[in-house]
Amino acid sequence: MHDFVYKNKNLFCENIKVQDLAARFGTPLHIYSYNTLMDHFIKLRKAFSAIQALICYSVKANSNLAILKVLVNLGAGLDIVSGGELFRALKVGCPANKIVYASVGKTEAEIATAITEGILFFNVESLPELMSIDRIACQLGKITRVAIRINPDVEAKTHKFITTGKITNKFGIDLNNAYKILLLRNKFRNVKICGLHIHIGSQITESAPFVAAIKKVADFIRKLESKGISLEYLNIGGGLGIIYANEAPQTAQVYANEVVPLLKSTGLKIIMEPGRFIVGNAGILVTKVLYIKNTPKKKFVIVDGGMNDLIRPALYGAYHNILPLRKISKTEKADVVGPICESGDFLAKERLIANVKEGDYLAVMSAGAYGFSMSSNYNSRLRAAEVMVSKNKVCVIRKRETYADLVRNELLFKAK
Amino acid sequence: MHDFVYKNKNLFCENIKVQDLAARFGTPLHIYSYNTLMDHFIKLRKAFSAIQALICYSVKANSNLAILKVLVNLGAGLDIVSGGELFRALKVGCPANKIVYASVGKTEAEIATAITEGILFFNVESLPELMSIDRIACQLGKITRVAIRINPDVEAKTHKFITTGKITNKFGIDLNNAYKILLLRNKFRNVKICGLHIHIGSQITESAPFVAAIKKVADFIRKLESKGISLEYLNIGGGLGIIYANEAPQTAQVYANEVVPLLKSTGLKIIMEPGRFIVGNAGILVTKVLYIKNTPKKKFVIVDGGMNDLIRPALYGAYHNILPLRKISKTEKADVVGPICESGDFLAKERLIANVKEGDYLAVMSAGAYGFSMSSNYNSRLRAAEVMVSKNKVCVIRKRETYADLVRNELLFKAK
Repeated sequence: MHDFVYKNKNLFCENIKVQDLAARFGTPLHIYSYNTLMDHFIKLRKAFSAIQALICYSVKANSNLAILKVLVNLGAGLDIVSGGELFRALKVGCPANKIVYASVGKTEAEIATAITEGILFFNVESLPELMSIDRIACQLGKITRVAIRINPDVEAKTHKFITTGKITNKFGIDLNNAYKILLLRNKFRNVKICGLHIHIGSQITESAPFVAAIKKVADFIRKLESKGISLEYLNIGGGLGIIYANEAPQTAQVYANEVVPLLKSTGLKIIMEPGRFIVGNAGILVTKVLYIKNTPKKKFVIVDGGMNDLIRPALYGAYHNILPLRKISKTEKADVVGPICESGDFLAKERLIANVKEGDYLAVMSAGAYGFSMSSNYNSRLRAAEVMVSKNKVCVIRKRETYADLVRNELLFKAK
Repeated sequence: MHDFVYKNKNLFCENIKVQDLAARFGTPLHIYSYNTLMDHFIKLRKAFSAIQALICYSVKANSNLAILKVLVNLGAGLDIVSGGELFRALKVGCPANKIVYASVGKTEAEIATAITEGILFFNVESLPELMSIDRIACQLGKITRVAIRINPDVEAKTHKFITTGKITNKFGIDLNNAYKILLLRNKFRNVKICGLHIHIGSQITESAPFVAAIKKVADFIRKLESKGISLEYLNIGGGLGIIYANEAPQTAQVYANEVVPLLKSTGLKIIMEPGRFIVGNAGILVTKVLYIKNTPKKKFVIVDGGMNDLIRPALYGAYHNILPLRKISKTEKADVVGPICESGDFLAKERLIANVKEGDYLAVMSAGAYGFSMSSNYNSRLRAAEVMVSKNKVCVIRKRETYADLVRNELLFKAK
């Protein structure tokens, strides 16, 4: 469910006609619905209310300050993966004790800042990292908390780049080694191991892999308890899939029905880290048709949004629905491509696309997650503006870049 | 040939030890050799001196102002693909009459600025674009010049994302339609069609596809001449491959030997658009080893450079040689992976890698082209610093980003 719907043949975001936004703010343009964002968060919280899970929104999906602020105001915690995301989290006033920090490559400086700020805990991805955290905490004269990220070795059935819970992935620690670490937990004098973390991948549309992973970790928790090792937190990660094409992903409630009993049985406080589930369908990318190009073999709809704005089709072969802002019943098979000088710069291939003409706009649906956050200045293109709509109101939440932004940090070489 | 070589077991860039640069400027760090950059340009110019080709460096490969300035000072023109690249070209003082502008998706504003600035010509990619340029030039009261980009329908034998000269690609105009356009050339009152353009792809290591494409276009030029249509320019594009792994690409001279006779036969002024050939091996990406992670199945060398710094391995399956800054004879099979929370974030997979330890540095070779220019802030990571070395001298040509840069254009939402 989301708030981008046709009313009288025109696509609206909540109460505002999307075409008016495109005309006013220019294109390419990211548009988010405040209501959709809130709605997804609240649905998830409600589904998990029986166990009062702390929902730590996954900042990497969309790290815009305004989006973080909306969620933090609703009571969300934040799941961060870098010092930059910690900076953002603190900037929007997220309480440090609602921040959890994952990443296989935390630097010393990042770890030190996170300890100093007093985050809830680190999701630790390897023994060397645990040793680093312990050493840095010691240098700072602090005791810090960590959850061990378990690699449960389950198949998540998603794109190979976003499956993260197989033992051949770089993430987490296998059960055997995690067990050994937990037995040695008192050796780490400045680290308290307070929980376990799993995260098996992204855009997973069925519950079976989640259930399999949670069962494995619940068994492991029981084994630990039998050895006198008690924990406080179980962080079940994110990865909940959304509808891009014809997927029928589980709802928050169906997912909760499946996993809450398992989670309850652990007796631990539960944390979850949804990103795409909250923001994915809360955003669209609006792009303008520059040229209709008919070649002997193909029709190309050339638009002003490129792979620098949305790299998911090129990188993951991802599907995004593409709709005209003004409903047109006639469709024709076409490639929708951007202006970038690569054949990989496409938004859709050989797809039935509304019969738009030059100057019309198209909405690339479900672009709220991993859209702007992965965007670049490739081809010296300016990163797009982002606006948020709430009912009749619209607010720029990120200004379109200028040419001055492109070269802000550059300096000429003075060799001779 | 390039200027990154081991001296006494330490990797140097010209006369400076790379390790000293990493320690001084931090990592990840892009390092360019001024001499390599110059050398590649000069070799190409020499190879084509018989026909005095205008070498328009392809800005998208690496658009740093300092790099552009070095080349412009040597007499290079610039091949641009956006308004942002035009801004950069003018900023480094490139004469407008040495700028050629390609892209399937030029916007009205971009076209208007390029006309006003008086660029040499547009490479026109479709009939609708030609009509737009004509209309905009008319509105501005100017006559502007264009080359028709021919899609010669040849197989370039490179990654599907960077092959651009097949008829199923979005680029250029097939010969039949180009012919029709040229017959109607007088209908475009504010556009003078002064040349033809081809560009068949990128990282092409053998001459056969180039020769095939140039032969096709040379035949076409003769056909046009027989109809009384004479042109001034032939733009043969870029695409010259470099050594990443074990390729044995043609040298500039071998390439020239093959194509110069064909080009001479056209009697036209020749333009070429090399990017990677000039800057690819002139740059490396230096990254620090954060953790060595041994799992039951694999060894992972976790470094502080990620897919946001260099997306070529993830996007194209590209190979980059990875060398230790201090030579180590012992190697071990490992994945070299970055800190980003995706399994797609890798620099090398199952590769024999020097037996480095935590705190050591690695050089990702041949990262000068499509490295920084495709970089992003994904995972809220700061884009890396860039430095250029000339003999004993080093100069920062782009400062490392700060957290303030990350959120510079963001604004909180004020809904209530």
